[in-house]
Amino acid sequence: MIIIMGRDVTDEQIGTVVKRLETAGLKANISRGIERTVIGAIGDERQLNEEMFTPLPGVESAMHVTKQYKIVSRESHKQNTVIDIGGIPLGGNQIQIIAGPCSVETQSQMDLSAKYVHEAGCRMMRGGAFKPRTSPYAFQGHGEEGLQMFRQAAAGHNFPIVTELMDARQIDLFLKYDVDVIQIGTRNMQNFDLLKEVGRLNKPVILKRGMSATISEWLMAAEYIAAGGNHNIIFCERGIRTFETAYRNVLDVTAIAVMKKETHLPVIVDPSHAGGKAWMVPALSQAAIAAGADGLLVEMHPSPCDAWCDADQALTPDELKKLMVTLGAIAGAIGRTL
Amino acid sequence: MIIIMGRDVTDEQIGTVVKRLETAGLKANISRGIERTVIGAIGDERQLNEEMFTPLPGVESAMHVTKQYKIVSRESHKQNTVIDIGGIPLGGNQIQIIAGPCSVETQSQMDLSAKYVHEAGCRMMRGGAFKPRTSPYAFQGHGEEGLQMFRQAAAGHNFPIVTELMDARQIDLFLKYDVDVIQIGTRNMQNFDLLKEVGRLNKPVILKRGMSATISEWLMAAEYIAAGGNHNIIFCERGIRTFETAYRNVLDVTAIAVMKKETHLPVIVDPSHAGGKAWMVPALSQAAIAAGADGLLVEMHPSPCDAWCDADQALTPDELKKLMVTLGAIAGAIGRTL
Amino acid sequence: MIIIMGRDVTDEQIGTVVKRLETAGLKANISRGIERTVIGAIGDERQLNEEMFTPLPGVESAMHVTKQYKIVSRESHKQNTVIDIGGIPLGGNQIQIIAGPCSVETQSQMDLSAKYVHEAGCRMMRGGAFKPRTSPYAFQGHGEEGLQMFRQAAAGHNFPIVTELMDARQIDLFLKYDVDVIQIGTRNMQNFDLLKEVGRLNKPVILKRGMSATISEWLMAAEYIAAGGNHNIIFCERGIRTFETAYRNVLDVTAIAVMKKETHLPVIVDPSHAGGKAWMVPALSQAAIAAGADGLLVEMHPSPCDAWCDADQALTPDELKKLMVTLGAIAGAIGRTL
Amino acid sequence: MIIIMGRDVTDEQIGTVVKRLETAGLKANISRGIERTVIGAIGDERQLNEEMFTPLPGVESAMHVTKQYKIVSRESHKQNTVIDIGGIPLGGNQIQIIAGPCSVETQSQMDLSAKYVHEAGCRMMRGGAFKPRTSPYAFQGHGEEGLQMFRQAAAGHNFPIVTELMDARQIDLFLKYDVDVIQIGTRNMQNFDLLKEVGRLNKPVILKRGMSATISEWLMAAEYIAAGGNHNIIFCERGIRTFETAYRNVLDVTAIAVMKKETHLPVIVDPSHAGGKAWMVPALSQAAIAAGADGLLVEMHPSPCDAWCDADQALTPDELKKLMVTLGAIAGAIGRTL
Repeated sequence: MIIIMGRDVTDEQIGTVVKRLETAGLKANISRGIERTVIGAIGDERQLNEEMFTPLPGVESAMHVTKQYKIVSRESHKQNTVIDIGGIPLGGNQIQIIAGPCSVETQSQMDLSAKYVHEAGCRMMRGGAFKPRTSPYAFQGHGEEGLQMFRQAAAGHNFPIVTELMDARQIDLFLKYDVDVIQIGTRNMQNFDLLKEVGRLNKPVILKRGMSATISEWLMAAEYIAAGGNHNIIFCERGIRTFETAYRNVLDVTAIAVMKKETHLPVIVDPSHAGGKAWMVPALSQAAIAAGADGLLVEMHPSPCDAWCDADQALTPDELKKLMVTLGAIAGAIGRTL
Repeated sequence: MIIIMGRDVTDEQIGTVVKRLETAGLKANISRGIERTVIGAIGDERQLNEEMFTPLPGVESAMHVTKQYKIVSRESHKQNTVIDIGGIPLGGNQIQIIAGPCSVETQSQMDLSAKYVHEAGCRMMRGGAFKPRTSPYAFQGHGEEGLQMFRQAAAGHNFPIVTELMDARQIDLFLKYDVDVIQIGTRNMQNFDLLKEVGRLNKPVILKRGMSATISEWLMAAEYIAAGGNHNIIFCERGIRTFETAYRNVLDVTAIAVMKKETHLPVIVDPSHAGGKAWMVPALSQAAIAAGADGLLVEMHPSPCDAWCDADQALTPDELKKLMVTLGAIAGAIGRTL
Repeated sequence: MIIIMGRDVTDEQIGTVVKRLETAGLKANISRGIERTVIGAIGDERQLNEEMFTPLPGVESAMHVTKQYKIVSRESHKQNTVIDIGGIPLGGNQIQIIAGPCSVETQSQMDLSAKYVHEAGCRMMRGGAFKPRTSPYAFQGHGEEGLQMFRQAAAGHNFPIVTELMDARQIDLFLKYDVDVIQIGTRNMQNFDLLKEVGRLNKPVILKRGMSATISEWLMAAEYIAAGGNHNIIFCERGIRTFETAYRNVLDVTAIAVMKKETHLPVIVDPSHAGGKAWMVPALSQAAIAAGADGLLVEMHPSPCDAWCDADQALTPDELKKLMVTLGAIAGAIGRTL
Repeated sequence: MIIIMGRDVTDEQIGTVVKRLETAGLKANISRGIERTVIGAIGDERQLNEEMFTPLPGVESAMHVTKQYKIVSRESHKQNTVIDIGGIPLGGNQIQIIAGPCSVETQSQMDLSAKYVHEAGCRMMRGGAFKPRTSPYAFQGHGEEGLQMFRQAAAGHNFPIVTELMDARQIDLFLKYDVDVIQIGTRNMQNFDLLKEVGRLNKPVILKRGMSATISEWLMAAEYIAAGGNHNIIFCERGIRTFETAYRNVLDVTAIAVMKKETHLPVIVDPSHAGGKAWMVPALSQAAIAAGADGLLVEMHPSPCDAWCDADQALTPDELKKLMVTLGAIAGAIGRTL
């Protein structure tokens, strides 16, 4: 922690800061500059927070010099973590493309989807049974019945399944249908009670970035899960909210590079929600893989025009197949496999 | 719903759109311009969503012309709704200042706080027992014990109490301690399962705006509560996230004026979280009241420097008292009372 | 300047940083913490910039501890600066409302506008002769002829006039028509060559905040003007760009409070461009004055529906008159006059 | 243009809108829905702007249905425009990497840079003689002397040169030193007088996107240049400003795909300013090319640690060489060449 004192600081004010540091078990290094005096804390600064100092008289600002996240940090674990999902590795050299429809609609839609996902060469499948919708009057997902249909469709291809958990009270259902990867959606990235609950499970968790979450908040949200004992966390960048209105979100490719530097955990990308239009998905997918993402979460629907939600952003089976070929070539260009 | 067709649209493509409209029970008005053909839907467009049309060939874009929110909309209810909170009206001519500490710490801190809130002339009290913290290692609130202390401190002054609900599983506790106003925090604005639950209660709900929620998303979130039967909703603007880093959030005063136009429900402001610094609170409070807010949710602590959280933003008892005087004068200037 | 070294820093890396500091004439204070080593620069850090250190091996980050702006900073000049504009003080206890149309259209429109501005009780007038328009095909302003009409209309009421300068080559014209206050528009806030030119003039300058300029960039832009010798600078907050699309910009009232703390120069607000709709202007104007603004730059048109530009946001003469009454009452409530 | 009338619209209000349309030479299509009446304009709507209607009584909103940009739009020119820069094509199948230092410092630095740019296999060179700096006290560029040094260094390799123009009064110098490509910087994207001037030249222009410019504003800025007769415009995405503070800007890869759809002109990317750190440049460059960019504007310095500006973001000569190899492979993966 560094505490910057205002211009006309007094010795007494400095003394109060130093005392607070010492009470917390740290020592102070005082550096008197010409315009500012800077006090550095020596010791384990995770005990401190900035607000312990900023309201004190004479203090201009205070800031941490170490990261507040620990378990998820690359400082604590240098090598990439590879997460095993039903025998499929995520976070290693091989890139994983998780495809499937936005929402589970019918058994035949799911069976067809599974077939197409398989034909495109993907190894995992996505689909939503509980749907977070902006309007209370929109289709909210089939719930348990949806999980059942999804499980059945995936069985034929031995696909691990990925689906969104919206509330802690649904966890028993998720365990009953043995969901392989639990997805925490954008709107729940800081639903701390939910994070604590999945932190107690022994299941991989995809943690989507909040619509306007900073890198640091995202890592801290993951730390909530990790602190509970569950270290199988996969970050998923899905576009951030900005001033631009020509597209739904701005896919933040810089975040991929920065996250890979800050954490040892896998980072994947959802190009479908990022752009919001199917025609943008190939360009965004290619960018994500080229920037170093470990995988994608892509929407594909047997017949996008008839999809019950997000029809706009689903690829057709043929488009997915074609995209996989290009992604394979890009993976090769950067020394990875698909 | 208006559907704008691309430049080289064919009759067949127009036909497909019209058929979809008719299937949904609406009629089409076709307007062939020089560069674009526009199809207008005639009928109840709440049945439609944009994605029913945008993936169709030849469609450039589609947009609603009516609002998607109904119960909370001023179109459905012209007069201001005044919510009764233990005999205190919110949303009428009288402005309500709800003050108190960020978090419940000790019984004596709460007793002192209640005394100061009373002395300043406020009629309701705030305080957090369940705290959403960015870090899992930070103080998470006293939980039930906190509710108990809060209830006891408020009793002496007959203060209705306002406190945050973070998870549906805490509702029984909230009913046990008869919390007067349930606050849904910023990070839970789109926790739809939680919104549905408070929609079933018969308690006023303060719905804080999400950090980067649009006006429309905020109103739709309230519609989730209202759709469940609970119409006692109070909107609380608390600053939005922007590119600016010199302060924590940007208090969006424009939102106050816009919300008062769009909804009949009360709109209050949290100036403490908006700025993040106690010295900014008076200016922001004054701006909020001058712009038409129906009340404030202000942090005050008997001894800010010793507060367990958000120490930086709490007013001292004296500062609150002084602020109340200025706010009274501003209320008078715009024909209201405090 | 504080330089934070990475985790596994070596003595040699620390040595390189220290040497660079010493070469620049400063001294180093080295504080070895448990997880990070922090090097503080002692001396005049305005000689340094962060990039002198961040590319060096072992450096994690570097940051200034003093402000980069000097002349405009309140640290350099504690009292409020009151700028004299043709005998009218801006920045003192009296609040100034500068009103007038968006653009100069005709002589009679300007004459009428001047009459209404006078009747409302304002003491200065605004109007644009050179107009920055998003489209090259839109009305670009009358140029010199516009200045002439404006000058003539203002003469009858002895109004100082405020108008926008878009290019250094127009300065001679501005001097010819003796423009009293030169406005630098949002899009030119960082047109550094233009700032340098007005820095050489002896005329008050209104510097509008860039659409997404930080407080610090805004102050640095003013420092460009001040560094040239012209210290008569008036800051004008006009709304910032955010994710919200329900209104054109978000009026940043927090910026008013923060700027008044950071600089001794006057801060005014443009509520018309901020909201973009005339009906929002009263609420925003009231908020701005209540938050501590020294004045407003408001659009008023004799007949808004017929305005050649920004018709949407101009008040009618009656609306302006009514607003002035309310603003007078709010000014009184906070101990100022109008 | 579509004009949406409010709920309780009267025939008289509709009549006023229709009359305004007819006065402008267009016809009206009136579509009376259940909740809203929609009026469509039939004819050349470029004559209209939204503000001609929004202030009229009964009007809720108005919006264009056609794009306001014409010359730069792909609607007006289906094929990709390939711009010839001293014999080197930009915008075709071959991707161009324009490399060089942030600013021209010395002759030897430029000679060395040119050598390394050549060795890496690039065909064009960048370098700044006029520098837009946030602080008036920072190095502002060598001006004419810088152009001279740049010209001389480039001569040995027949490199076309790219450099920034900050003010119309510098144009004669740019012509004197025969600058091959004129760069308009981020802060000047809406410096309309400057755009008009380069619109009169017969030189390719790189138009950088403003820090928070929408796609539509960016295209309209280019239309200013094109309207003057100069159609040799190259768009350059350089990262946008968002809430995220972990990196300088967010590279908007979605913009690449969207711009390639909206305009026939080339789109390049500046990965150096986007991220602000050299270590991010490879990932961002790879993403940009994979997403479909026609080229890059990359900073490389013979000795980044000693660079006079933006030292943080310059690649070393070796890093550039290595990056070129990877980019070549990615280009191949998407069917292009480098």
